[in-house]
Amino acid sequence: MLQTRIIPPAPNAYTCPLLIKRLLLSGVRYEKTREIVYRDRLRYSYATFTERVARLANVLTEAGVKAGDTVAVMDWDSHRYLECMFAIPMIGAILHTINVRLSPDQILYTMNHAEDRFVLVNSEFVGLYQGIQGHLTTVEKTLLLTDGEEHDAALPNLVGEYETLMDAASTRYEFPDFDENSVATTFYTTGTTGNPKGVYFTHRQLVLHTMAQAASMGSNDSVRLLGTSDVYMPITPMFHVHAWGLPYTATMLGLKQVYPGRYDPELLVELWRREKVTFSHCVPTILQMVMNAKAAQGVDFNGWKLIIGGSALTRGLYEAAKATGIQLTAAYGMSETCPMISSGHLNEELLAGNEDECISYRIKAGVPVPLVEASLMDAEGRHLPLDGESQGELVLRAPWLTQGYFKEPQKSEELWEGGWLHTGDVALIDEMSCIDIRDRIKDVIKTGGEWISSLELEDLISRHPAVRDVAVVGIPDPQWGERPFALVVVNPGQEFDARALKEHLKPAVEEGHINKWAIPTQIACVTEIPKTSVGKLDKKRIRADIAQWLDSGSPFLSTL
Amino acid sequence: MLQTRIIPPAPNAYTCPLLIKRLLLSGVRYEKTREIVYRDRLRYSYATFTERVARLANVLTEAGVKAGDTVAVMDWDSHRYLECMFAIPMIGAILHTINVRLSPDQILYTMNHAEDRFVLVNSEFVGLYQGIQGHLTTVEKTLLLTDGEEHDAALPNLVGEYETLMDAASTRYEFPDFDENSVATTFYTTGTTGNPKGVYFTHRQLVLHTMAQAASMGSNDSVRLLGTSDVYMPITPMFHVHAWGLPYTATMLGLKQVYPGRYDPELLVELWRREKVTFSHCVPTILQMVMNAKAAQGVDFNGWKLIIGGSALTRGLYEAAKATGIQLTAAYGMSETCPMISSGHLNEELLAGNEDECISYRIKAGVPVPLVEASLMDAEGRHLPLDGESQGELVLRAPWLTQGYFKEPQKSEELWEGGWLHTGDVALIDEMSCIDIRDRIKDVIKTGGEWISSLELEDLISRHPAVRDVAVVGIPDPQWGERPFALVVVNPGQEFDARALKEHLKPAVEEGHINKWAIPTQIACVTEIPKTSVGKLDKKRIRADIAQWLDSGSPFLSTL
Repeated sequence: MLQTRIIPPAPNAYTCPLLIKRLLLSGVRYEKTREIVYRDRLRYSYATFTERVARLANVLTEAGVKAGDTVAVMDWDSHRYLECMFAIPMIGAILHTINVRLSPDQILYTMNHAEDRFVLVNSEFVGLYQGIQGHLTTVEKTLLLTDGEEHDAALPNLVGEYETLMDAASTRYEFPDFDENSVATTFYTTGTTGNPKGVYFTHRQLVLHTMAQAASMGSNDSVRLLGTSDVYMPITPMFHVHAWGLPYTATMLGLKQVYPGRYDPELLVELWRREKVTFSHCVPTILQMVMNAKAAQGVDFNGWKLIIGGSALTRGLYEAAKATGIQLTAAYGMSETCPMISSGHLNEELLAGNEDECISYRIKAGVPVPLVEASLMDAEGRHLPLDGESQGELVLRAPWLTQGYFKEPQKSEELWEGGWLHTGDVALIDEMSCIDIRDRIKDVIKTGGEWISSLELEDLISRHPAVRDVAVVGIPDPQWGERPFALVVVNPGQEFDARALKEHLKPAVEEGHINKWAIPTQIACVTEIPKTSVGKLDKKRIRADIAQWLDSGSPFLSTL
Repeated sequence: MLQTRIIPPAPNAYTCPLLIKRLLLSGVRYEKTREIVYRDRLRYSYATFTERVARLANVLTEAGVKAGDTVAVMDWDSHRYLECMFAIPMIGAILHTINVRLSPDQILYTMNHAEDRFVLVNSEFVGLYQGIQGHLTTVEKTLLLTDGEEHDAALPNLVGEYETLMDAASTRYEFPDFDENSVATTFYTTGTTGNPKGVYFTHRQLVLHTMAQAASMGSNDSVRLLGTSDVYMPITPMFHVHAWGLPYTATMLGLKQVYPGRYDPELLVELWRREKVTFSHCVPTILQMVMNAKAAQGVDFNGWKLIIGGSALTRGLYEAAKATGIQLTAAYGMSETCPMISSGHLNEELLAGNEDECISYRIKAGVPVPLVEASLMDAEGRHLPLDGESQGELVLRAPWLTQGYFKEPQKSEELWEGGWLHTGDVALIDEMSCIDIRDRIKDVIKTGGEWISSLELEDLISRHPAVRDVAVVGIPDPQWGERPFALVVVNPGQEFDARALKEHLKPAVEEGHINKWAIPTQIACVTEIPKTSVGKLDKKRIRADIAQWLDSGSPFLSTL
């Protein structure tokens, strides 16, 4: 290490660790009377919110939660979850956001692995919880979360019901200072193989992530995503990467926030309308559901800015959303990255050019936000040029990346091989520093020595007017190694087959965007495409389904 | 300290220290071809800028600069200064920005005290430098900065001329990682008593300051100050608190930047026009000079956003600027605070109210930016309520405050008394978290047991159409302790005396804004008001001048 000059602070100087409590302090200063809204059930001001965070800290402390303890939450998106995102870390404990869409066995695994000592359980999950609680090895106490309904839930070691306890608690709590490297949150990635893996983020990481999100989204004039007059409603679950960290950012900036509970598309549209929501984020699948909702038909969504992440933003979806007034921008991140890595940024040159090229940049993964360093690596760990042509694994450095998988030294080392976080995504980065995700390394279709991006094919196919949803995977082929196979959901009343697909892709072949062997010669038209618990294409299951159809013959298949 | 959970990173994980090099990386990614402009002398792209920072690192390294060394710069605002703001800290050295407006003795003092080993001297300061160089105790080598003119400067141990050395240097430099708590910059406060005091800021502090500046200014929809399409030109010197840190923020966001050299008002207006400047910052005095420039007469400055700091922003100046199209917003900070502490933020309630009240908030010191904590203390170190009425010393906590004065343990301890940084400013903080600076503690006028804010009086007097500039100080009075005394610069062709002043202040007395004994019964009309080297009212000299006039009788005096 270089011998720089480090001056010890004056003995009485305050060194100011980066703690989550500072984010809350900022929001309530900006807008004391702005509202936080939970469905049609509750609304209160930032001033009340601040008091409620103190109340919750008292409730937890009185229940026996101590610094260093892990407190798990099983809830839909709510004001309670937001309160937990602050109060739990602010007393030095760790918030474990449980992915309630995992199987009971997986939930059980994550709770034991994370060493949860306290659990807050929404009444809707009491049944699920009772099914696993006999196997929980570390949990000592439970709290019940309800929307005010009567309940007689028999939870073991129940401290009480959330709102009842909150009512009785003091609105004052002296939140202590501690090491900014203390773990604040943890959750588990929904790996497609093996056990879920626990990632974890410190106070320092979450504060820096929040600052970078506000700095990049707030100052971005080319794709203005976020400002203090926005009304925020998440449509990616709070249990999944802290709803992309945006509840922290929204709180720091004092934004009005709307929490919709479980994602009922009709309710989401209703909340958007009633609360004048201007800013959300979601995965493509959920957006499809929202746009297909009854309440959404014929509605002009103008003024609604939506960030799309989790899966690639196709041009088809972009155009479909635009036709309803929704302005989409892609962003990139993953569980391991807190998650914000990059988002749409159009430079001077692009903005001076044509609209079509601007769109092609809005739907890419975007430019890394400040403090992030992105590179590409080949299979031997060599850095590749960022020239818009070289494809390699996207690798990252930033101050908010998980520093490993909890209690998984081997997997942690693989994640950080060579001192860079390996994303498992194949990408290229062009002269404008824009990241273009081509595929998951394991989803790339290797045919005749060439790599075909399944994402690119999905994007092209999605532009066909008959296609509502699409997935492309490689299936084994004795001659070519692999061949692409398309799974398609067709719009009601429309038709689509292998011939139509070939016709549709012809221009892309002629213009040199794809090779002719990238055209799937087999497709299956289904009513629904398998998705993971967080709404991503479940390519593992898709491959298994296809293998079975190919073995057994299937009515869905269309072959050239 | 609380026993939280701290998980050691995976052995090969990259922990990502907060280093200034990351800010540069971000800017060039956003806008590779955007320009950095120096007067009418030079313009180049961010891509070239990045190369030039590497060149400068090579020049300095070859000249013998090592990590931990202090490198001083004596220059006007230039691309060179910007390059130094990056290259010097990025090699682990410390940038000492010399206040070239100090007296030669003071400059000598600061250079010896800071232990400068290398000095970069603009040819304009060669004479000054030659005058002190015999007394410099630590300087080993010098570099000459020129605008390309011929020179035969006899500088001792001259390495060479900047551009010549840059031309010969490599554009590649592997900037190393090191501890984020390494000192990056230092400079000296222009104390009105005693020797200048050295403040210092680390990489971590400057990165966090930059993030907070971008986050707060970029996302602020109520007073939008900064976005990626802005064109930035500083009008507070780069040697003074890193031009408020904005060159770092502008660089991180990839903004076009314009450096005007020495502040010639005619040139500033010309650069504003030619380069389409939209965003600047300055002290009131300089803005007055700019608005009075020949080139500014009759010009519509619409679209130029200017932050005012250093001294209070009076309503008179706000209105005068508005009449020319310039949109002013106040911000607050000081040398010890890096400097950003607060800036104008109008909450929902204010925005829904009347324009006049909004203006009264735009000219106050504003709401603390994220991560800053502001409080008020009485003389006994007790915290006062933030109720808009209690007045006390403004005290601060934030991650970017100087952790002491360099080699001044006693003064450092005073600065940080009770674990809060003492600003020396009397303020109140209202329910909207807006800071209202009333006065410097030492400038408050103590009359008959009451405290009168000299700033408030100056603000009121500034609104008189005949008044161009004003200062109010307390002068000793046998009966009242102190009495206010006004020093006024009158607009050409107009008149102003004690009677007119009394008449002007009458409404404020009647409406209860000030007490009637706050009306100065004596004023002096002068052609210029003494200012410090950074453009603040020099109240020490003003008091001395007034004492002399009162002793000797003066033609300037007007008495009721």
